[in-house]
Order: sequence, then structure tokens, then C-alpha cells
Amino acid sequence: MTFFTLRTLYVCMDYRAVETTDEYVARLETGSDWRAEIEALAADVDAGAAWFTALGAVQDAELAFYDQDDLEYYSIDADEPLEVASCVGNVSWLNGDRFAHTHVVLSDADGETISGHLNEATVWAGEVYMRVFENDLEREHDETTDLDLWL
Amino acid sequence: MTFFTLRTLYVCMDYRAVETTDEYVARLETGSDWRAEIEALAADVDAGAAWFTALGAVQDAELAFYDQDDLEYYSIDADEPLEVASCVGNVSWLNGDRFAHTHVVLSDADGETISGHLNEATVWAGEVYMRVFENDLEREHDETTDLDLWL
Amino acid sequence: MTFFTLRTLYVCMDYRAVETTDEYVARLETGSDWRAEIEALAADVDAGAAWFTALGAVQDAELAFYDQDDLEYYSIDADEPLEVASCVGNVSWLNGDRFAHTHVVLSDADGETISGHLNEATVWAGEVYMRVFENDLEREHDETTDLDLWL
Repeated sequence: MTFFTLRTLYVCMDYRAVETTDEYVARLETGSDWRAEIEALAADVDAGAAWFTALGAVQDAELAFYDQDDLEYYSIDADEPLEVASCVGNVSWLNGDRFAHTHVVLSDADGETISGHLNEATVWAGEVYMRVFENDLEREHDETTDLDLWL
Repeated sequence: MTFFTLRTLYVCMDYRAVETTDEYVARLETGSDWRAEIEALAADVDAGAAWFTALGAVQDAELAFYDQDDLEYYSIDADEPLEVASCVGNVSWLNGDRFAHTHVVLSDADGETISGHLNEATVWAGEVYMRVFENDLEREHDETTDLDLWL
Repeated sequence: MTFFTLRTLYVCMDYRAVETTDEYVARLETGSDWRAEIEALAADVDAGAAWFTALGAVQDAELAFYDQDDLEYYSIDADEPLEVASCVGNVSWLNGDRFAHTHVVLSDADGETISGHLNEATVWAGEVYMRVFENDLEREHDETTDLDLWL
């Protein structure tokens, strides 16, 4: 007789239950850097792991695209005011610093859209919702992708 | 001997801890207005502050882009059915009314994408997740951007 | 004398209060399917209803657009590496299986963007935040849209 359970289903992915200790809304400062502001918020509330979504507008932006063959980031400059139609990301430790891994969708006066990994952007106005997790996340080098990944 | 702490780091941005009182999932009504439906949900559950993400599709949409020189919104019409590939926003008080500040990313039959600030859109199907915060958020005029911002 | 309350406002939409039982962060496995990984996570934690946001990159993707006249999904192939600039979705039951309704915004080396309903995509790297709700959501056929909707 064989006992089995559906819970034995093999899942390759890594995952972890998280406990939220606190939640914040923030208004990013006009003229500051979008990502640095989010990292400053995380630092100010002592967050070693967090998840956020956001919206707003920027005065300019530098995005990046990760080339999966070259295993390198190439930057994409956007030198004009753009709406932040979407922003999703998380905060974790990377080489001893808080890093806000931030992806954005940006749009111009015609609604035309560019998007990707955010390096930096000058805030026009930004509204952020952040959840802080009890246990820190730390990025470590992943051989397959040559990226710094957590879990 | 000098004592110092990283907590003395100056953070320009405004932020506030929030307490979530309740959470909702909603299905927006086909034929209604996307943003008005979200405001109606907020009103129906007595929310004076909330954060939401959503996805779905619309029959048409009017986006807007805020011109950072003219300090005015200019509208962008999209007169066709579009997927709502992303929707992020928040609810706060604006001049005595609940206002759902809503940014969306919309896509057509080829995946081509327009995005920005949402004025209005006729719902085809919409799925929303909303968190309601205990303390209200209220928008007030910001001189620098000529926008109504909270915090 | 008449008593009345704003709560009598008629709201057509369906909505439901949800209770979150647990929250997870996950790192999707390189080479696996983006949506199947999210469904595997939901299965592994016994989730019958969940909401998620995510970001990352994929090696290729098949999106879909729902034609509101034909009432059919048409697929859109993207045969190249793309950033996942945004991902929003939810898990519910559909015909006895867990279904991760997933919308994504994808971008190429120039930041050029396609977006829509996600059928499948090969993960390069993926970071997911998922909230699991106590009560299941189940999709049922909706006559108006010919879609399977919950609530």
C-alpha cells in the first residue's frame, strides 16, 4: 500500500513565506533620484527586505536591458519628461548596500511607451506603496544568469 | 569621541506608516467606467485611503500626459479595445471627493502599447485588488509641480 | 424628515472582502515557464486564491489579445529575450485547475514595449510577491464577455 500526497509535487523554484512588519506610503521628492529615494525610504525604516509598487512622473530616465547572451546590462537613455505608468520592485541587500530592484513603464505625451530595468530617473512626482518584510533578503551571484539574485 | 548613527541620514521625501484595515478583490462591471468603478468601490467600503493594482481589458480609453513645462494635462484618446496590461493607483480625498489616481498600460491586438495617467475608460472586464488604509490621505496643491499631492 | 446615507449608493460591480493567510516571495527558475511556475507556487502552498505582482526577464513569450468582437483570444509571439517590466495577476480555480491570470509588460534592448495577457514565457529570471487569500476564487462563464470571470 502506497501513501502519497499532492504536496510531494516537485517545485524547482525557490520561495519563502514572508511576514510583513510594516507598510508605508511615500511621496518622492521632486528633483531627487527615483530609485535612491526608494532606497532612502528603506534605509530610514530599517528595511532589509521590502516589496513596492509605485506611479508618478519623471523628468528623465536611464533604463537598462540585460543582454542574455553577453550577460551584461546595456543602458537606454530617455532625456525627456515621462509618466511612470507602472513601477514594481523590491528591496534587498546587495554587497552590503540596500538595493531597490526597480522595473518601470514610462510614457510620453503621445502615450508611447518604453520600459525596462530602472537605473536612475529624476523624480517629477512619485507615489510609492512599500511593504517591509521581517527577514532580510540578500542577493548572491547566480552562475546561470550572471545576475545577483535572492533566495 | 563621537557617536553617530545611520538613522541621521536626511530623507527629503515624505512618508507615512499605514495600517491596512481591510482588503478587497473586485470585478469591474462591463460597460461602466474603469476609474469611477474603483472610486465607487472605495466609497462603498468607506475608504478614505487605499492602494490598488488591477488588470483586465477596456473598450476604449482616455489617457493623459502631464506637461511639466505647461503644468497642464493633455489628453490622449484611444478609441479601440485594449488589454489593461497593468494598472496601479491609489485612492485619496481631492476637494472633498474620493479620487482614484490611476496609471495604466494598455495594449492592442499586436501587443503595441500606450500608457499613462487614466482619465476614463469603458470596462470590458476588470479585476482589482485593493487595500484600504485606516487613516485618510488628502491631496493638496503642490506649488512646485502644480499638482495635487498627498503627504 | 428624511434620513439617508451615502452607503445607499448603488454599486454594480461585484466585490468581496478577502483575508490574507500568508505571503510569499519567489524566485522563478531559469528555463521554466513563467505562468506555470506561479501556478506551481500556488499549488505548493495550497492557494485557491491569490494576488501577485512580479518583475524579471524572459527568453521568449507568447502573449494574447482578446478580440471583443470575435470573443476569442489571438496570440502574439515574441521570439526574443525581453525584460518583464511589469507583471500583475491573480490565481483562482478554472475548471478544476489553478489558473494564474497574468498580464505582463515586456521590453526589448531599445526599451520598446509589447504587453498583454500572458500565455507562456520562458523564464530568464523572475521575482514574485504573492498574497494568498483564505477563501477560494472560482471562475465561471460570463455571458456578456464569453470570458471566465470570478465573483
